[in-house]
Amino acid sequence: MIDLDRRSLLALAGVAGMALPSLADGQTPPAPAPGAPDPMAIPPDAPVVAILIHPRMVMLDLVGPMTALNILRCRINLVWKDKTPVMTELGLPMVATQTFAECPRDLDVLMVPGGMMGSVACMNDPEVMAFLADRGARAKWVTSICTGGLTIAAAGLLKGYDANATWTISDLLPLMGARHVDRRVVVDRNRMTCGGVTAGIDLGLTLAAKLRGEEAAKRVQLNMEYAPEPPFHSGTPAQAPEIAAAIREATPRMRAQALGAAQAAGKRLGIA
Amino acid sequence: MIDLDRRSLLALAGVAGMALPSLADGQTPPAPAPGAPDPMAIPPDAPVVAILIHPRMVMLDLVGPMTALNILRCRINLVWKDKTPVMTELGLPMVATQTFAECPRDLDVLMVPGGMMGSVACMNDPEVMAFLADRGARAKWVTSICTGGLTIAAAGLLKGYDANATWTISDLLPLMGARHVDRRVVVDRNRMTCGGVTAGIDLGLTLAAKLRGEEAAKRVQLNMEYAPEPPFHSGTPAQAPEIAAAIREATPRMRAQALGAAQAAGKRLGIA
Repeated sequence: MIDLDRRSLLALAGVAGMALPSLADGQTPPAPAPGAPDPMAIPPDAPVVAILIHPRMVMLDLVGPMTALNILRCRINLVWKDKTPVMTELGLPMVATQTFAECPRDLDVLMVPGGMMGSVACMNDPEVMAFLADRGARAKWVTSICTGGLTIAAAGLLKGYDANATWTISDLLPLMGARHVDRRVVVDRNRMTCGGVTAGIDLGLTLAAKLRGEEAAKRVQLNMEYAPEPPFHSGTPAQAPEIAAAIREATPRMRAQALGAAQAAGKRLGIA
Repeated sequence: MIDLDRRSLLALAGVAGMALPSLADGQTPPAPAPGAPDPMAIPPDAPVVAILIHPRMVMLDLVGPMTALNILRCRINLVWKDKTPVMTELGLPMVATQTFAECPRDLDVLMVPGGMMGSVACMNDPEVMAFLADRGARAKWVTSICTGGLTIAAAGLLKGYDANATWTISDLLPLMGARHVDRRVVVDRNRMTCGGVTAGIDLGLTLAAKLRGEEAAKRVQLNMEYAPEPPFHSGTPAQAPEIAAAIREATPRMRAQALGAAQAAGKRLGIA
């Protein structure tokens, strides 16, 4: 769960006396004996994870992999410039648990979710770019979901790496020095990137295995009951070319803004 | 997106001057001409959806299907007894947008996410049971995710229906008059239930097709890039029997509490 002490959590929730968060299904333990150590406490060697949140973030980009890392009992912080709420695409506000300044210098995982126009704004924001370039330079894993791939690429973190992002803009990755590989989850050395939105669940499980081993990741997968049965066959542009063409045709302005931000970032990064 | 006017939204977020939420990837339109109708406005005939939120809710149970319904441009409200924050399993607080009293009497969709101990608390709470029984009696669709299946069953909404819930407790459904069917998404007349956590995405797309037709649902699926590739084969107890046994063995208290709540509900409902 999120790494907040009780006082911060209650302040965030704005309530007094609220019970502390419980854990995902299948994880609530028997009541511990008085004085016994809490079996649900985050272990001291838990991976330290920082996830960027930003305005116009797509909530599922965050919640998919975060659920996997939460069941794995990582120490997760949501980071942003400040602690004013940022509004996600669902209309649900989110509040950072750490500012950029408070975020540990050395991370096991730096993770960047997407949300098209929110990612574009991050790419054009020197403060966000400087933060990601700094933490990404030392993080054991640098990861992104959906258009978050553009965000980390703009911070120079995908130069010379295989990478992917959501299909509408993944072809822009090479403008910032990445090699675009059209796979759902792409792992190249310590970079892990993926396609859009729901691909974050596949990334979360792949990352869980890297952090804690395959057995632990399989346990997480069963806890999330991840044995998907999509009702239709239209999850990629190849599966639904006509719908993909219609979406592309309807979003020229968004595409133009992503292209502009990618070109500007490429120039900063010295990409020919 | 959530059906909130600008003033309520800003009050909820606790900030002034925040931009209104944008939409999911692939949906931001070109800037409309001055005076033109907003193409992203919720259409007047949008399905009216009420989703129960409750303490200890599993966030992904909510966010999976909600993302599908949001891209479909439904009018979504999150409902609870009051508007004090409820804490989800991820440690992220959520605030209802409507109280039970404010929730429309006639709904297109009533949806109930899960979260084991949170669902058990709802089953034992007369106020929650009365609200669900009332709205569920008239809703065009009554739907649940994960242990939310127990919650709606306890409210008498699955008596005589095929249904499913997450694998750890789905065998308890018959205690409340349902017939347990072990399928990822189960549709019986106007009831739609499913397995745990990630099964809510499959349910969301299945429901999208019922509400707006298959073409619309396929468009939603492409927007969510839902072409899953689980890295392991351990998403059901049948796929990972040893892990399932270990999870069962570790959670006797949770199981006992769910059983107790199901038995009490069955008694109330007059199930033999």
